[in-house]
Amino acid sequence: MQDTQATEWKAGNTASLSKTISEYDVYSFAGITGDFNPAHINEEYAKSNRFGTRIAHGMLSAGLISSVIGMKLPGPGTIYLEQQLRFTAPVFIGDTITATITIEDIDEWNRMTLTTVCSNQNGKEVLQGKALVIPPKQ
Amino acid sequence: MQDTQATEWKAGNTASLSKTISEYDVYSFAGITGDFNPAHINEEYAKSNRFGTRIAHGMLSAGLISSVIGMKLPGPGTIYLEQQLRFTAPVFIGDTITATITIEDIDEWNRMTLTTVCSNQNGKEVLQGKALVIPPKQ
Amino acid sequence: MQDTQATEWKAGNTASLSKTISEYDVYSFAGITGDFNPAHINEEYAKSNRFGTRIAHGMLSAGLISSVIGMKLPGPGTIYLEQQLRFTAPVFIGDTITATITIEDIDEWNRMTLTTVCSNQNGKEVLQGKALVIPPKQ
Amino acid sequence: MQDTQATEWKAGNTASLSKTISEYDVYSFAGITGDFNPAHINEEYAKSNRFGTRIAHGMLSAGLISSVIGMKLPGPGTIYLEQQLRFTAPVFIGDTITATITIEDIDEWNRMTLTTVCSNQNGKEVLQGKALVIPPKQ
Repeated sequence: MQDTQATEWKAGNTASLSKTISEYDVYSFAGITGDFNPAHINEEYAKSNRFGTRIAHGMLSAGLISSVIGMKLPGPGTIYLEQQLRFTAPVFIGDTITATITIEDIDEWNRMTLTTVCSNQNGKEVLQGKALVIPPKQ
Repeated sequence: MQDTQATEWKAGNTASLSKTISEYDVYSFAGITGDFNPAHINEEYAKSNRFGTRIAHGMLSAGLISSVIGMKLPGPGTIYLEQQLRFTAPVFIGDTITATITIEDIDEWNRMTLTTVCSNQNGKEVLQGKALVIPPKQ
Repeated sequence: MQDTQATEWKAGNTASLSKTISEYDVYSFAGITGDFNPAHINEEYAKSNRFGTRIAHGMLSAGLISSVIGMKLPGPGTIYLEQQLRFTAPVFIGDTITATITIEDIDEWNRMTLTTVCSNQNGKEVLQGKALVIPPKQ
Repeated sequence: MQDTQATEWKAGNTASLSKTISEYDVYSFAGITGDFNPAHINEEYAKSNRFGTRIAHGMLSAGLISSVIGMKLPGPGTIYLEQQLRFTAPVFIGDTITATITIEDIDEWNRMTLTTVCSNQNGKEVLQGKALVIPPKQ
C-alpha cells in the first residue's frame, strides 16, 4: 500500500487538505445540520449584512480539520478527544481553504496536542485551534 | 425550550434541536469534508473496530450545536467567536441526537458564554463544550 | 435522435443525453467517490495547472454514457458487460456535455457493440469508447 | 507533509480504497447522471428482477477506481488516458467495495498500465479492468 502512515510521529509533523468552498458545500452543510441562518443561505439578506455576501458555516472549516486528522495525521484509528476552535475571519463561497494540522506535543500517555489552522487563498487565518487526540497504535 | 427570540437574554435560557442521524447525513458529511475515514464509511472495517459498526463524524454533532446557535439562541446575526468540544461517546447511524444550548453567563461587553451539549436518545452525553458568542442587537 | 425504445434494434440506431456540468455535479461526484484530487476541487491549485481551472472527473462523463445505455439505448433491462474509455480532452465546470450512443453491431448471440462518445458544446470529443451490452428481451 | 508519494514507482505497487455503498451513493449518482434505470432506484421493480433488489450503477464502482488513481497511485497530477471495464457481478446497497490498483507495467515513455479491480466484502470481483495513465513528474 502507498498510503501507510509514518512509523514514528514527532512534534512538527504536518499534513493539510485544501478545498475551494462551493455553494454546494454550504447548502449541503445547511441541509445536514438545519443551519439555515440567512447569513449562509440568503443572498438578499446577506447583501445588507456586515460582509455583503453569504458566508460559509464555521463548522464546515472545522470539518476540514477533522478530515485531515482522521485521514492523514494521525489518520484512521485516531481517537478524537477534544477540539478548541476560534473563528477569526469569514469564509466566502469561492474561497479556497487549507486546513493544516501540526503536531505540537506528544505526552507520556501518547496523547497528541495538535495545532489546527484554516487559512484562505490569501494566507489569512480564518480558524485557529487545538485538538487533543490519541493516535492509532503503530 | 425556547424557540423564539427572547426580548432579553439571561442565564439559564435554553434551546435545542433533535435529529435522527441517517446514513445520508454521515455520507454527505464525508463527501463535503473528504473525511473517508473507514470508521465512518466502511462497515466491514467498522465491524472489527472498537464499536462494531460505523460511527458518525464528531463534527456532525458539532454542526447541530452551531445550528441551534445560529437559528435559535441567540439566533440570526450572532457572531460566533469560539467553541470548545469534548467528544465523550460515539454516535451511531440511527441515533437521535439532541443538541442543547444554555446561556451560562453574559459579560459586561455583552458576550455570552453558552454551554453546549449533545445527547443521544438514551440521555447519554456524546459531546460537551462551551461557546463564546456576541448576540445580535435587539 | 431516438428517445423511445425501438421495436427492433439495428446498427446505426442512436440516442443521446446532454447536460451542462455544474460545480454541484463535480463536488457531488467527489463526495461519493472520495476523489478530492485538487485538480477537481481546488481552484487555487488548478489555476497553476495545465488547464488553468478545475476540471470534472472523467468518470462523470462516463456516467452520462451509462445513463444513456441504461435509460434509452438499449434501455432498462440491459446487461452492461464491458466499457472501454479514452479520455481525450478536459471537461470544465460549465461545459455542456452530450453523451451519444450508436449501435455498431449486433452479433449472433444478440450482444450489441455500441460506440460511445462524449462531446462538449464546441463539438470537441472529450471521451471516446465502446461498450458491449446484452439488450433487454423485447 | 505525511501524504507525499513514493519517490519511485515500480510494477507491483498497489493502493486501495474501501467504501460501504449506501442508498445515498446510488441515489446521488443517479441524480448526477440521470441514470434512473429502475434497476437502480425502484425497489418494487427490482424485486421481480434477476437480482431481487436494487443494484448500484457499475460506473459508481468505476468512480472508486478513478479515486484511487487520482488520490493515491499515482496520485494528484496523473493524466488519465484510458480505462477498460468489465462488469462481472452486481453490487448491492450495503456491499463494501474495495477498489484496488496495481502497477502492471511502466513503459519507456513512462506510461503506466494499471490493473484495476473492485471486489465486495466476500472477495468476489465485481469489476475488472486496466487503466493507462501518465504519472505526475516526481
